[in-house]
Amino acid sequence: MEQSVFPKYTKAWLPYAAPAAAPSTPEEAARAELDNGLAHYGFARPVSLKTESLGEGYRIDASAEEIVIYGQGAGMLYGAFYLLRKIALGQEIVSETQQPEYALRMLNHWDNMDGTVERGYAGRSLFFEGSRFHYDPERLRFYGRLLSSVGINTITLNNVNVHPPAQHLIDDLLPEVVKIADLLRPYGIRLLLTVDFAAPTYNGLATADPLDETVIQWWKDRTAAIYQVIPDLAGFVVKADSEFRPGPITYGRNQAEGANVLARALKPFGGTLVWRCFVYNCRQDWRDQKTDRPCAAYNTFMPLDGQFDDNVLLQIKNGPVDFQVREPVSPLLLTLEKSNRALELQLAQEYTGQQIDLYYMQEMWQEIFDVLPRGNISAICSVTNLGRDENWAGHDLAMANLYAYGRLCWNPDCLKDDMAREWTQLTFGRNCAAVDEIARMLHSSRKTYQKYNAPLGIGFMVEPHVHYGPNPEGYEYSLWGTYMRADRNAIGIDRTAAGTGFTAQYPADLQKLYEDKSTCPEEMLLFFHRVPYDYVMEDGRTMVQRIYDDHFEGAEEAQALLESWKKLENQLPADVFARVLAKLEKQVVNARNWRDITNTYFHRYSGAEDAKGRVIYP
Amino acid sequence: MEQSVFPKYTKAWLPYAAPAAAPSTPEEAARAELDNGLAHYGFARPVSLKTESLGEGYRIDASAEEIVIYGQGAGMLYGAFYLLRKIALGQEIVSETQQPEYALRMLNHWDNMDGTVERGYAGRSLFFEGSRFHYDPERLRFYGRLLSSVGINTITLNNVNVHPPAQHLIDDLLPEVVKIADLLRPYGIRLLLTVDFAAPTYNGLATADPLDETVIQWWKDRTAAIYQVIPDLAGFVVKADSEFRPGPITYGRNQAEGANVLARALKPFGGTLVWRCFVYNCRQDWRDQKTDRPCAAYNTFMPLDGQFDDNVLLQIKNGPVDFQVREPVSPLLLTLEKSNRALELQLAQEYTGQQIDLYYMQEMWQEIFDVLPRGNISAICSVTNLGRDENWAGHDLAMANLYAYGRLCWNPDCLKDDMAREWTQLTFGRNCAAVDEIARMLHSSRKTYQKYNAPLGIGFMVEPHVHYGPNPEGYEYSLWGTYMRADRNAIGIDRTAAGTGFTAQYPADLQKLYEDKSTCPEEMLLFFHRVPYDYVMEDGRTMVQRIYDDHFEGAEEAQALLESWKKLENQLPADVFARVLAKLEKQVVNARNWRDITNTYFHRYSGAEDAKGRVIYP
Repeated sequence: MEQSVFPKYTKAWLPYAAPAAAPSTPEEAARAELDNGLAHYGFARPVSLKTESLGEGYRIDASAEEIVIYGQGAGMLYGAFYLLRKIALGQEIVSETQQPEYALRMLNHWDNMDGTVERGYAGRSLFFEGSRFHYDPERLRFYGRLLSSVGINTITLNNVNVHPPAQHLIDDLLPEVVKIADLLRPYGIRLLLTVDFAAPTYNGLATADPLDETVIQWWKDRTAAIYQVIPDLAGFVVKADSEFRPGPITYGRNQAEGANVLARALKPFGGTLVWRCFVYNCRQDWRDQKTDRPCAAYNTFMPLDGQFDDNVLLQIKNGPVDFQVREPVSPLLLTLEKSNRALELQLAQEYTGQQIDLYYMQEMWQEIFDVLPRGNISAICSVTNLGRDENWAGHDLAMANLYAYGRLCWNPDCLKDDMAREWTQLTFGRNCAAVDEIARMLHSSRKTYQKYNAPLGIGFMVEPHVHYGPNPEGYEYSLWGTYMRADRNAIGIDRTAAGTGFTAQYPADLQKLYEDKSTCPEEMLLFFHRVPYDYVMEDGRTMVQRIYDDHFEGAEEAQALLESWKKLENQLPADVFARVLAKLEKQVVNARNWRDITNTYFHRYSGAEDAKGRVIYP
Repeated sequence: MEQSVFPKYTKAWLPYAAPAAAPSTPEEAARAELDNGLAHYGFARPVSLKTESLGEGYRIDASAEEIVIYGQGAGMLYGAFYLLRKIALGQEIVSETQQPEYALRMLNHWDNMDGTVERGYAGRSLFFEGSRFHYDPERLRFYGRLLSSVGINTITLNNVNVHPPAQHLIDDLLPEVVKIADLLRPYGIRLLLTVDFAAPTYNGLATADPLDETVIQWWKDRTAAIYQVIPDLAGFVVKADSEFRPGPITYGRNQAEGANVLARALKPFGGTLVWRCFVYNCRQDWRDQKTDRPCAAYNTFMPLDGQFDDNVLLQIKNGPVDFQVREPVSPLLLTLEKSNRALELQLAQEYTGQQIDLYYMQEMWQEIFDVLPRGNISAICSVTNLGRDENWAGHDLAMANLYAYGRLCWNPDCLKDDMAREWTQLTFGRNCAAVDEIARMLHSSRKTYQKYNAPLGIGFMVEPHVHYGPNPEGYEYSLWGTYMRADRNAIGIDRTAAGTGFTAQYPADLQKLYEDKSTCPEEMLLFFHRVPYDYVMEDGRTMVQRIYDDHFEGAEEAQALLESWKKLENQLPADVFARVLAKLEKQVVNARNWRDITNTYFHRYSGAEDAKGRVIYP
């Protein structure tokens, strides 16, 4: 592995010098960060570190003369990073105690060992190339600092779709995994291993049936062997019975029977079994009007509530379909009572602009937490948006999402803060003249993207497989259960009691809200209802006119983002300016495509003319 | 290269033993074929071969006592195969003389050196694997016999899209090409080399500008070097300025300037420059209503008529778009006067069923020759349908197309013959009880496929890239210039004088015929016209009802093909029966998909109910 082949990388929001030596403990790391950080920010007051057992939390004792951070292990490091952030932001340093809301604050890499990243838009894998481990240790340490600085404490390395040879990360390739675990441990980061449910069959067993004694023993033995070399492993992640992945259903068992076998193997070591709930029929026939994909996870998992062991964590995507621009919160997150739940988000902008379009996620998460009672989940996970690109996330401004995500995992109260502004100040300097404008751009970005994309919660009007770019009927006759059934009169699936009955999966108040067109939030109107084009919206516009208006406005707003950015040329580093400029120029072109194709599509079906007489191509 | 890795292969329509030794001349091959063939068919009368110079033709002198075939070189071999065919078919042997109508009877392989075949549906390449030559010499000799037995005399080995390392077939890899030329020469088969117009730039030159003196000299030198080792090379084929291929336009020159440079390099050696006319804007914007893809080839080439050297052969696809199920004949084939033209067909079933669906092509070719005056073309070419599959063409019955194609190249008068029946008898034996049924299935197959596919000449309602399976709007907003602009009232592009003006490219009689909806052949109605769904067809049905009816009938006919085949189980070899059965079973399922998706698509737009009340899914 030659050092020279690794690309350079930006410092993201950690502008001061990285510690010269690799730390061997979080406490050592904390001291090194403070030494370099305080000097960089010209902070004169002495800061000392004192050991106190506060779990992952920390306590800051601030006086006019000195500051003491109390903590232990990662907690001490989190305290150091927190203090440095407050200094960088020019915030007042007060005595306070912080504890994370969630013990598991996770990032999932969907990296493949061939170096590609599934749904990755930031270059190739940080870990793999050519079917083997291939990484820049210095960069991985920097990566550890980045994650630790915002409180993320758990990562998976490999894709939930376990492609060869990644199934061997738990056996033959384990020594290489150990090296990564060792490298990241001083930053308080633990590994989760993404495993293949059929792993026993790759190791000589005739079956992976979770009730088979040899299978149960195999998982026990293998897990023990792994903990021998990675004693602080966080556990396993499994995508089972989902999109062609093997799982318990393959062997005639249910999800709980499958999950519990792995959970019991992990139990003696304090490990967690993270079990994804993304289970649905991905070979649906569009002619089948009864099966409704959003119903699938609830139908599969609700009957099993109470049957999962206490170290099973059910990882549930925020919406009931698949990371669309606008979805309601997954009912499973609201209704499971006896199972541990993790909220799964996606920083990787699969359906949300692929790190070409600006799409800041704080407002989206706010909508989720507006609905999700605070105690409902015990962990948060996200698919990462990082790769080997120089700027980590492909789009420089997409790093704001990683920053805000870390803060969210630590404590969702952060949603009250202007994290876009924080990130901008940390990245470009507190007094950078571009701060206000960048923060404003970030905060407006989701609404803009949503306007020129699939309208009013309809979803999946995208190029198949790629998941970017407008293709209104791209998924209409597919096997993926993603239909909208537009005709000359109406569009959408009726998911109320009169239709597929999906609304019944929600608690009574939400069910009532979504059930009725007049109370359903308009952004989700076409998610829940089949609606005629001439349906009159709350403000008096017809539904189709609202779609036209949104798309014209969205494309204009994309143009405005570009114009705003152009004014920042002299206020930002030239390379950052140029990279983001190139992205925004693409966004403008793509937004126009979205506008024109979507408007034409609805015009062809509805025959409705635009009330303002703007150009809709025939 | 180990013999053992090569798969076995069927004898196709040459059921007798292949000659034991590789022949060194066509005359030797002729004798060997006769020896084995006559014995196999139990033909007692002596057959002798006598040399007479008749070009590629031959003369048969038949008496009650003996038969003499006069000819020389390949002509003698063609005479031998012709006689054997007549014997196999039980036809009367009479004295006669035969000459081929076209001197160049070509097959284009779209094989890539990585072993894949572009638009190949019969397994991997017969020539390549792993970026090098990789072939079974015995099989290639059999391949030579197959082609020679129907009169094909020229092939290209590599894809018109020249992918690395195939650009080196004219230099570094030339010694390997020589081996193939030597191997096929005794069967009267010559090679054409598919070259990259930018080849000079891969060999140290700064440009491939055809007017640059160094480029002109480079082509001369390279061509001379090639003829040194393949003295009977037929020439070069070039796909220039087409779908991202480099060409003269890249250098600001026109097509004639580009073609002539290569033609002049070939001229001293008697070589032909085959120049494809598949030039169009493949980055069109769907919003652009003026550019109309079918107009492209005519607009590019007609102004240059008379400027091409006499050894340039313009290779023109049968239709003006791209091998769709139903297209009018390309106007360029009808209007060029001072340029040599080759008709380009496609045996590979790219849009015509991908060797899953049964699709026999004789009737399609008949439609072309009904319109094309006999002297208009001087050569025929086709993309091949063969690959490394055991049965050569993926679908056993698709071999009937190769057989009929060879006969067509020799003399289009064959279109009067029942070539489907001939092929069946040659393949399964003259007295095979399945002959009538198979011939009937073949002859009906195109009409069936056409019924359940894109309706009335509309084209391109297929899965993008793959080009199989229904996806009505798959290409609607693409960059490929293939739009139909369906809306709630009508569908199709008006290509008359009132529209894009494409009809004006035709000679007056055809222009008049196509210009008017009432005289335009109904199968091409939606190719030439924009038509409301309620347009009343000649038989009184509305256009949309005709579409429904066709699609219901097409799916039923596919089912009927399967039922017909099932009755042949005991009349055919078990392996052939099983292979074709599997294909037909797929065809039935796929035909239903086509039916349902196409009918639903038109129902959603038009709102018209089926007059017969059959199921159209909402």
